[in-house]
Amino acid sequence: MEDTPAQRPRRKPRSDGERSRRTILDAAAKLATVDGLEGLSIGRLADHIGMSKSGLYAHFGSKEELQLATIETAGEIFAAEVIAPARDATTPLMKIEVLCEQFLSHIERRVFPGGCFFASAAAEFDTHPGLVRERIAGFQRDWTDQLTQLVSEAQAAGQLRAEDPNQLAFELNGYLLMANTAFLLYDTPEAIQMARTATAARLALSRASS
Amino acid sequence: MEDTPAQRPRRKPRSDGERSRRTILDAAAKLATVDGLEGLSIGRLADHIGMSKSGLYAHFGSKEELQLATIETAGEIFAAEVIAPARDATTPLMKIEVLCEQFLSHIERRVFPGGCFFASAAAEFDTHPGLVRERIAGFQRDWTDQLTQLVSEAQAAGQLRAEDPNQLAFELNGYLLMANTAFLLYDTPEAIQMARTATAARLALSRASS
Repeated sequence: MEDTPAQRPRRKPRSDGERSRRTILDAAAKLATVDGLEGLSIGRLADHIGMSKSGLYAHFGSKEELQLATIETAGEIFAAEVIAPARDATTPLMKIEVLCEQFLSHIERRVFPGGCFFASAAAEFDTHPGLVRERIAGFQRDWTDQLTQLVSEAQAAGQLRAEDPNQLAFELNGYLLMANTAFLLYDTPEAIQMARTATAARLALSRASS
Repeated sequence: MEDTPAQRPRRKPRSDGERSRRTILDAAAKLATVDGLEGLSIGRLADHIGMSKSGLYAHFGSKEELQLATIETAGEIFAAEVIAPARDATTPLMKIEVLCEQFLSHIERRVFPGGCFFASAAAEFDTHPGLVRERIAGFQRDWTDQLTQLVSEAQAAGQLRAEDPNQLAFELNGYLLMANTAFLLYDTPEAIQMARTATAARLALSRASS
């Protein structure tokens, strides 16, 4: 059957409501790395994206609802920027290398203006029990589990020597987190480069004796 | 000359003003790791320590003044808890080991309820240029410089192999920072132990080939 103009669009486009929800949440995820998730007031966000407060209230009933939706969106951005590129890597070790590099690259490219969303959110909410903290911890745990799982697979495949996979994942994560902190604080790419050196050396060490 | 009760106190005690200033700033430094330096309002702080708002205003003219004074006090607490114990260590390498251990121990003992004051403050202010951010970055830089300087001294003394001292300091700092983040987020001592393992292994690696 021919695809005539009259039949277009064949895919239902996202509704205005869905589109503006995503626009709001993209802005919120970025803003939260500068002003904090607590700093995300519906009023400030409305000003920032040039939308009415009542329009925003229609999307999010409460501040916590807005914060939780912002975390989900930040997770989707992180997945697209950092996780997705590792899918094409053909071995577990290569996947680890791509994940670390993509993490550093998303900091360097300032995907979020305040660096890693989850590092920023964790620092803000680590002492505030509740749903928001649980969700942030959940994302951090998923990331660490993914790294640890890949280390185990690389060990099983003989690419890395046998050692506690949690320990190796912890050390790699430490380099990434330190790069994020120092890059934001001193505003130089030096820290990103040191994390690249550290990651490569640590993996080489584990490879060399495998 | 006998020390009669009439002569006491022989040392001039700190004035009430000095004592209450320190009491306020101790509380402020701890509270800031939970609520943030921006969350330090004179009103909330007055409630927290049971003092009148006007009494607090007499000490600090502005919020920024309170924030800067809080950072100085946090620096003094950090110096007493983490830096001072390293003075007794007899070699540069031992000083590095003591500094790393004392850092981890001050997290584990919850000297500040929200973990490392400067990690918390950096995450909050890294995207907010100004005096507060400069002072936080200054403290972080002093800490890193101190570690780097000790690495250089340990290398000169033949305790550690020749390598970029900034790189080794970066990696050690990464383990400490990761321990802080994970300890606060997951509330288990596991991360502290992983940082101890990582630090010991990294120093052993540098020692082994020296």
